[in-house]
Parts: sequence; C-alpha cells; structure tokens
Amino acid sequence: MNAITSASDERLVRVPLGERAYDILIGPGLIVRAGKEIAARLMGRRAAIITDENVAPLYLDALFASLHEAGIQPSKLVLPAGEKTKSFEHLMAVCDAVLTARVERNDAVIALGGGVIGDLAGFAAGIVRRGVRFVQVPTSLLSQVDSSVGGKTGINTHHGKNLVGVFHQPDLVLADTDVLNTLSEREFRAGYAEVAKYGLIDKPDFFAWLEANWKEVFSGGAARIEAIAASCQAKSDVVVADERENGPRALLNLGHTFGHALEAATAYDSRRLVHGEGVSIGMVLAHEFSSRLNLASPDDAKRVEAHLKMVGLPTRMGDIPGELPPVEVLMDAIAQDKKVKSGKLTFILTRGIGQSFVADDVPTSEVLSFLREKHPQ
Amino acid sequence: MNAITSASDERLVRVPLGERAYDILIGPGLIVRAGKEIAARLMGRRAAIITDENVAPLYLDALFASLHEAGIQPSKLVLPAGEKTKSFEHLMAVCDAVLTARVERNDAVIALGGGVIGDLAGFAAGIVRRGVRFVQVPTSLLSQVDSSVGGKTGINTHHGKNLVGVFHQPDLVLADTDVLNTLSEREFRAGYAEVAKYGLIDKPDFFAWLEANWKEVFSGGAARIEAIAASCQAKSDVVVADERENGPRALLNLGHTFGHALEAATAYDSRRLVHGEGVSIGMVLAHEFSSRLNLASPDDAKRVEAHLKMVGLPTRMGDIPGELPPVEVLMDAIAQDKKVKSGKLTFILTRGIGQSFVADDVPTSEVLSFLREKHPQ
Ligand SMILES: NC(=O)c1ccc[n+]([C@@H]2O[C@H](COP(=O)([O-])OP(=O)(O)OC[C@H]3O[C@@H](n4cnc5c(N)ncnc54)[C@H](O)[C@@H]3O)[C@@H](O)[C@H]2O)c1
Ligand SMILES: NC(=O)c1ccc[n+]([C@@H]2O[C@H](COP(=O)([O-])OP(=O)(O)OC[C@H]3O[C@@H](n4cnc5c(N)ncnc54)[C@H](O)[C@@H]3O)[C@@H](O)[C@H]2O)c1
Ligand SMILES: [Zn+2]
Ligand SMILES: [Zn+2]
Repeated sequence: MNAITSASDERLVRVPLGERAYDILIGPGLIVRAGKEIAARLMGRRAAIITDENVAPLYLDALFASLHEAGIQPSKLVLPAGEKTKSFEHLMAVCDAVLTARVERNDAVIALGGGVIGDLAGFAAGIVRRGVRFVQVPTSLLSQVDSSVGGKTGINTHHGKNLVGVFHQPDLVLADTDVLNTLSEREFRAGYAEVAKYGLIDKPDFFAWLEANWKEVFSGGAARIEAIAASCQAKSDVVVADERENGPRALLNLGHTFGHALEAATAYDSRRLVHGEGVSIGMVLAHEFSSRLNLASPDDAKRVEAHLKMVGLPTRMGDIPGELPPVEVLMDAIAQDKKVKSGKLTFILTRGIGQSFVADDVPTSEVLSFLREKHPQ
Repeated sequence: MNAITSASDERLVRVPLGERAYDILIGPGLIVRAGKEIAARLMGRRAAIITDENVAPLYLDALFASLHEAGIQPSKLVLPAGEKTKSFEHLMAVCDAVLTARVERNDAVIALGGGVIGDLAGFAAGIVRRGVRFVQVPTSLLSQVDSSVGGKTGINTHHGKNLVGVFHQPDLVLADTDVLNTLSEREFRAGYAEVAKYGLIDKPDFFAWLEANWKEVFSGGAARIEAIAASCQAKSDVVVADERENGPRALLNLGHTFGHALEAATAYDSRRLVHGEGVSIGMVLAHEFSSRLNLASPDDAKRVEAHLKMVGLPTRMGDIPGELPPVEVLMDAIAQDKKVKSGKLTFILTRGIGQSFVADDVPTSEVLSFLREKHPQ
C-alpha cells in the first residue's frame, strides 16, 4: 500500500439535497479515517464492503481495520474487475452478501472501487430492504469526480448500458486522493476527460486553469485535490438543480453521445477504448460539430483538442486501435442512445469553451455527413 | 369471462402524495375501460402487461383489446402463478420483457393479477430506466384492498420475504370488482381478513359495518365496492402519513407478526395457509395477547374471532392442517421478523376494537408463555 499522508489539504463539498444531503470529503488519508467519518454520521454498526479484485489487495485491509476500530462490524465481498461485473448476476450476489451480513436500514453498504463497483453496490444498497445506507469510497479518478456523486446507480443488460437501476444518493463520499497513485496512467487520463468536461460545460475559467495546471493534477498534491473538489462541486450543482435527470442534468452528457457510440462500436473492449477516452474524442467531435453548424468558432475545437492531446488522451476516431465499423453503424448507435423524433436528435452542443447547451432539433442528416468527414477509413 | 356490468357504482379514491399523487378507481367493468383511463392519464403510447397463468386466460385479451383501442401498443408476459414467482429470476425476465417492448420513462408497465404480480411488476417498473410509469390492475381481493396501494414492491430471497425491492408508487390503480367473481372462495376470504384489519386498526364503525354487511361483500354488488373503497381509503391515509414506513405505517402489520411466523412455520405452503389466513389467526392472537396483558377486554378478542369465523376464516393455530413446529421455532421466526432489542419486541397491540397501537417494549418471555398456552400440540 502507498504511503498515506496527513489530512492537511482536505476539502469538503456538501451536496444540499434536503433530507438526502451529504458530504463529499476529498483529500489524502481518508481510507484510514473512514471508520471514524462513517461512525460519526451513520447510526448503524454494520457495514458490507463491496470491492473488486484489483482494489482489494491494495486498500481492503486498511478500510476493514479502520471500520473495526470505529466499532463498526465489516463484511466483505470481492468481485471481478471490469464493466461485465455490472450485471444482474452480480447484483444478486451483492444483495445476498448484504443480507448475509445482516445489514439493516441504518447500516451501510460501502463501495470501495471505481465506477463499476459504485454503480453496482449503490444499486444493491437502493433495493435491499427497499434502501439501506450507502457510502462511496471511490478509488478511480473517474469515480471520484463523476460517478460517486449524484445517486445514479445501475447495471447493464444485453439491451444496453445502465438500463436498469435506481436513484439512490450516498450518505457520504470519501475520495481518498492517495489511492489514485496506484491507478494506471491510462485510467487516470480517462478520468481526467470528465474533469475537463466540467470546464467545457459551463466553467471556462476552470478549463483555462486546467490548461495551466494539468501537470500538477497528474503528479498529485494540492492541484489534484483542487481539481477533484471543483469537479465534485460542479457535478453537485447540476444534480441539485435536477436530481432525477429531467432537464439540465443532460449537460453532463457533453461528448457522451459520440463517446457512447464509439464505445458500442468497439464492443466495450477496454483494450481498445475506455469510457473517458470515448468522452475525450466525443468532446472534440461535439466542438467540431458545433463549429460546423456555425455555432462556435473552429478555434475553440482546436483549443479543446490541443489540451486533451497534451495530457495524452485520444482525440480522433483514428486514434482508436483497430478498425471502426462504417458510419451507418455509428449513426445507428447514436440513434439508439438518443431518441430520434422524426429525423431530429437531441445533442449537447456548444457556443464555445464553457458555453454548452441542449439542442433537441439536430437533423440526423447533418450528423451523418459530419461523421462521414471525420471517419478515418 | 364474466359478464361485465355497467360503470354505475364506481368509486374514486385519490392518494394525495404530491407529485406522486394517483387515482384508485373501484367498480365494475374497469378492465374494458382500462385503455381509455390510462390514455387519459399517461403520455406514453407503449405498455408492457405482466400477468400470471391463472389470470391470463380470464382477462388478458380484454385488457389487451382495450389498450389497443385507446391507441396504446401493448405487449404481454405471462408468468407462473404463486409466491415463488417473486424471485430475482423472474424479475430479470420482467425487466427484459419491458426493455424488449421498448417501454420508455413515460410508457407503462401494467400489472394484471394479484399481489404477486403487482409486487414483481412494480419492482421492475421502478428499476427499468430508473423508473417508468406503473399501472396496477389488481385482480385478487387482497391486491385490491392492500398490495396495489402504497408503492411497496419487491421480491423474496432465501433470506426471507420482500427483502429486496423499491418504493415505487403506481400512477393509476384500476380495481375491477367484476373480476373477483372468478377468484376462489378461499382467496376471497383471505383478502377479506385484510379488509377487517382496517376496522380493527382504527375504524370500529367500519368493523361493525362489516359484521352487519359481510354477506353482501362476499356476494358482490354495492357493499363489496363500498368495502373495497373504504379499505383503499384507509390504506391511503396511512401511506400518506408515512410513505416510506418509518413510523405509523407499522400499524398495517396488525396480526402480521404472528401471521408471518405461521406462514414461515408452514413453509409458505399455500395448501396449508395463505397470507390472509395467517393474518386472520394473527389478528385473533394479537387481541387475545392484548387482553392477557390487561390492555383490552377479552370480549373484544371474542368478538373478532366470532366475526372471522363466521366468514369462514381460520382463527386458531389448530385450524391449520398438519403439524406445527414447537413454540420455540415460532418464537425464532417472530424474533427474526421483528428486531429484538435486549429481550424486547416491537408488536402491534390493541386497547380494543379499532384501538391498535405500536408497542416497542413487549417482553419476549410474555410472548413465549402466551404461545405455549395457544399452541395446539
Ligand atoms: N453513476 C454515474 O453517475 C456514473 C457516471 C459516470 C460513469 N459511470 C460508470 O462508471 C463506470 C466506469 O468507472 P471507472 O472508470 O472507475 O471503471 P472501473 O470501476 O472499472 O475502474 C477502472 C479500473 O481501475 C481499477 N482501479 C480502480 N481504482 C484503482 C486504484 N486506486 N488503483 C488501482 N486500480 C484501480 C479497477 O479495478 C478497474 O480495473 C462505468 O460503468 C460507467 O457507466 C457512472
Ligand atoms: N406491496 C404490498 O404492500 C403488499 C401488501 C400485502 C401483500 N403483498 C403481497 O401480495 C402477495 C399476495 O397477494 P395475493 O393474495 O393477491 O396473491 P396472488 O397474486 O398469488 O393471487 C392469489 C391467487 O389468485 C389467483 N387470481 C388472482 N386474481 C384472480 C382472479 N380474478 N380470478 C381467478 N384467480 C385469480 C392468482 O393467480 C393466484 O393463484 C404476497 O406476495 C404479499 O407479500 C404486498
Ligand atoms: Zn462519463
Ligand atoms: Zn397482509
């Protein structure tokens, strides 16, 4: 396990959702303090930890010991790592483990891992006894800045991603920034795409700050904590404005329509493309498409691409190893992701850096000819 | 199919749950009108009907045709009848059917059947796309007066009944009183136990009315509609006071602590005992136990027993065919159902007909010696 530094630079973001309000703590050494933080906030004295086989050898013992010391009786379940774990089969296994641990309404399910573990364990926490307490201990950058905040949980089915789930807000999020040191460079970068996304949605100053400080974010320390806290704050603002995703929350999908289509086109094969990489390419495409529709200047698209390229993210469809299916197949995936209404698509477009908006009248034909131009083959 | 009478004596109960408010329509001929009633209230034009193999041959065609006529595109899934259908396996099948039918957020899942189908389909409606619209068309008396109202949904696991589920309020409940004519006499009686329960909780006048009018309730017509509407109103009142079952909603469990223990003791074998029969015996025991604790007069217990016996319900443990396990095993089941805190149990007790209350300090030892006295063997 990595050295754990003292809790000096810690940040707190509060998600003000009325009786579902909760704290996000961001900083070093939080896993070691997890038991204390949880015991201070939750009434129950039992907890079921759900984690994956990559994270378990690194951090499970520390979390377990911390809970134990705080007088909480922990149990554990270690699942295979990877997107395939977000299945009905594993959901059953998690529910079973939570019930076997005799977790009651005031006790907690704890997700220790990336977005996969968070989405799955959160779903189980939302349905066992029609809802028990839930604590997120996100360990990937993506989960610290995005998936652990906002209460969307779920699993995949053969019909598609995240099609079955519930809204179940966590009671506490503990984002230990030390654990990111063991994350692969590639996964860190993928999470960084979502950090940049918040700037591109509606925070041009944050994007400019990232352009200046990205190296420090990658190397750790104060800028990393700052970037994560700013991202959690941005996500929290959107979630509070629209908890159940009926409107403005859609902006969080900037870059995701193209991104999801590319993920589907590569059969969710993480060797070829992981989610954040798809989002990176998708955000560049969204800016280029906006400029093609004369909504934004081509310079903005260039600036976005330059930054994402600088940090090492893919920015073009041609950057994806292997062959891509033809444009028509990508278009089908887009049409499935978004509901097409008489030839029109809903899309997140932009008027420039930090000026994105929801457009619900994008002609399918425009998307198609744009994709033809961008397709590498 | 039974003759369907005209919609003359219809009753409407509104459940005033803010933005989750909904109507319960009670009366004859509602299945034939279902399409119209649904189309008037929901935006979507797709519906997935979930039903069981007993109900399907009787009412599925009529419902299907009614939806079709109203411009709603229906799909159907017919499941085995019985409590075992409330499983993870069938939940997956329902989610799959709902997704295959391309039901979106504003479209509906329709439960056509008793409480088993309602609980299962409601759960699926609560989790597919993190919640789609849900319509209950309850066909058993129990589901018309109890399970279709209030939004509790769920499935069973090997850890126990209803341990996994969500709160998901329906958008409409259509209780067609004609369909009760094909329900077996025994199932009708079992549902009647829950009707009587509302009187015993806090409506002494309603209990007296049932004593006078039960024959008409059984034979159909105005008194039946009246009894169902009064029951739905009573359940609605409790649900509105405590949607997520943190307090007063516990009163709905009058008779259920003993009842659940007896259901467990007979391994949920419906040939020996169905839920409402367990509740009937349980309500008599709750009144006798209250009298033994000098809370209520023994005459009240006698009056409750006399009425339930009159309608043909079992009222004594000895009425259950086959042998019962020893008192200690029943006691274990009670302790598992309720949380035991240092030798004390939470129980619904009563000070007389219609004067029930939640007692959270019932000594285990008192329950044990009471059960010893009542145990038939
Ligand atoms: N709920 C939401 O709002 C939301 C938002 C965005 C994404 N998501 C979901 O999140 C998932 C993606 O999340 P992810 O990128 O974290 O994937 P992930 O959970 O698969 O984690 C990525 C990889 O990193 C490993 N890992 C995690 N933390 C580590 C650490 N500290 N050290 C070493 N290895 C570590 C994991 O074992 C895994 O192999 C997707 O399923 C996506 O649908 C959900
Ligand atoms: N969600 C709640 O708040 C709540 C409340 C009480 C009970 N329940 C649940 O309800 C279930 C029991 O409900 P139930 O008693 O309706 O059981 P059920 O759904 O099994 O129905 C009883 C039997 O009657 C048959 N049937 C139903 N309608 C018929 C009709 N019109 N004609 C002929 N046959 C018909 C069914 O096929 C079944 O065989 C249990 O699982 C219980 O946990 C839930
Ligand atoms: Zn994303
Ligand atoms: Zn009941």
